[in-house]
Amino acid sequence: MTVLILTCEQDVTADMVVAELDRGAVPVVRLDPADLPGPVALSGEYVRGTFRGHLSVGGRLVSMGGLRSVWIRRPGAAASHAAEASDWLTEESAQALYGMLRSTDARWMNHPDAARRARHKPWQLSLAQRCGLPVPATLITTFPQAARDFADRFPDLVVKPVSGAHPQEPPRAVPTSRVAPDTDFAAVAFGPTLLQRRVVKRADIRLTCVGERMFAARKTVAPDADPDEVDVRFATSSALWQPVDTPSSVAAGVRTYLREAGLAFGAFDFAEDAEGMWWFLECNQSGQFGFVQIESGQPIAAAVADWLAAPPPPGPRPNGARAWAMEGH
Amino acid sequence: MTVLILTCEQDVTADMVVAELDRGAVPVVRLDPADLPGPVALSGEYVRGTFRGHLSVGGRLVSMGGLRSVWIRRPGAAASHAAEASDWLTEESAQALYGMLRSTDARWMNHPDAARRARHKPWQLSLAQRCGLPVPATLITTFPQAARDFADRFPDLVVKPVSGAHPQEPPRAVPTSRVAPDTDFAAVAFGPTLLQRRVVKRADIRLTCVGERMFAARKTVAPDADPDEVDVRFATSSALWQPVDTPSSVAAGVRTYLREAGLAFGAFDFAEDAEGMWWFLECNQSGQFGFVQIESGQPIAAAVADWLAAPPPPGPRPNGARAWAMEGH
Repeated sequence: MTVLILTCEQDVTADMVVAELDRGAVPVVRLDPADLPGPVALSGEYVRGTFRGHLSVGGRLVSMGGLRSVWIRRPGAAASHAAEASDWLTEESAQALYGMLRSTDARWMNHPDAARRARHKPWQLSLAQRCGLPVPATLITTFPQAARDFADRFPDLVVKPVSGAHPQEPPRAVPTSRVAPDTDFAAVAFGPTLLQRRVVKRADIRLTCVGERMFAARKTVAPDADPDEVDVRFATSSALWQPVDTPSSVAAGVRTYLREAGLAFGAFDFAEDAEGMWWFLECNQSGQFGFVQIESGQPIAAAVADWLAAPPPPGPRPNGARAWAMEGH
Repeated sequence: MTVLILTCEQDVTADMVVAELDRGAVPVVRLDPADLPGPVALSGEYVRGTFRGHLSVGGRLVSMGGLRSVWIRRPGAAASHAAEASDWLTEESAQALYGMLRSTDARWMNHPDAARRARHKPWQLSLAQRCGLPVPATLITTFPQAARDFADRFPDLVVKPVSGAHPQEPPRAVPTSRVAPDTDFAAVAFGPTLLQRRVVKRADIRLTCVGERMFAARKTVAPDADPDEVDVRFATSSALWQPVDTPSSVAAGVRTYLREAGLAFGAFDFAEDAEGMWWFLECNQSGQFGFVQIESGQPIAAAVADWLAAPPPPGPRPNGARAWAMEGH
């Protein structure tokens, strides 16, 4: 049984996991959907009630029925490397590739539907609330008056994008910023705006979850840190990510979150306040983990490899879709 | 409790359903996400573990908690009517709108994740097979030799797009075409190609499913029809769509298909062969039904309205996502 990794050519994080899989002598095929058609080819036949599919990469033929798991790491758009690239060819190629893979029994990290849903920040906030994770008071609005009322109740606010990374090529992270006290908010009428009570934090927490395994890391905020530096990705800090225990109530909430979201992998960001409370900020279903592993020494890549290499669960028809059947939203 | 219809301004099919809902005095809000922000506004607040959201359209304010159902008919891209339209604003606005709607208890026709998955033709074919619906022998390939071998076994073939409509603006349907006997198939290396055994058909079948209700219509193919006219959408026929009974084995397969796919609405296309067998061609989760209703007299719009207006199912937390929890792929 083979592990399929969908990612682009330059991907150090994937390299780390491939090295772990190689150590375990687990067969791996790595391909970039951008190379389909061309270096990557596929074929699937539906005859007399059965489906048989194959992928070919670099002359190697893999049966889709022999796929153990699929890791969607950082794939290019299908057919984007084709000589005659077009939106139409991308759509045709993506539907062919992912449509066939969806028909296999492989386990997914993460299933594309679960991944897509998990990117919705408003949905994340609701789900985190339902799972009992503390969420800082948040408003998403196009009503200037609603924003003003919210700022009256919660005077110390940050603003962040609703959707995450800016969709330019390459995508650019949009930093979370502090809202100036005299902000008028008239401009929220021109685009949905996410305002959130600023958590006065003494540390940032990154909790990386791989299946049932959790790796929590903590990065201290210096007491004299600039309070305008709210986004850990852009803060000038010399502190390192250090392993930390996950409070049991957080662990329980996160487990429920991942189950309801149908995610095999999730990277949670929390802000730890002065009393030690972890406030949910977001869960990134495709979050990087290389930087945490390097600083904290936590064996995250090995955990990903273990998950991908695990034998299929017992039962008559273990399949990826069933594994992310939604219990909640 | 209000029915929310997401569609563009010019939509006769939506008009038909709104008329039915008005007859039943069911509150309806109709909006085009293209008008957000601007004529459409939204606000959602996450405070102390609860979410409260509102939509505003034409000065009317609707609580998201008061939504009974959401019908995704033919919505424009979010924010596409904005004065400063951009991919970024579309992404922000779509995430805000759909992210909040995903957090409500409303029932969906169809849930966006189920709808997206249901568009994958390779997945459709596998699911139809698993549901016991007869599927004509089909090959999707980028291997010229696989195509040639398939054509040796099934000499009378049609070719059709893997993904459906061509993604131009407005989207253009790509007709299914007959494959000439002397075709070389070298070109399949340049793009995934779907080849299917041509069903020599005596009628086209359109089976429109709305919740548990099925409306089958049949359009006779004239005995002297041009065998190259394989696509009913483009065929020159004077026959009308006529109501027909659904064979019980087909009804059972279709019910399973819709349940596994998590779809509340599906328009199935079948080809009826000389022996009366219905061959599955595809299931369009957003299929038009106006033309069938007009010719066949079947009350499809009323059935859609009934489904949208139905009270929420009993239980502690009836929600849209639960309604499409996947039992299979």
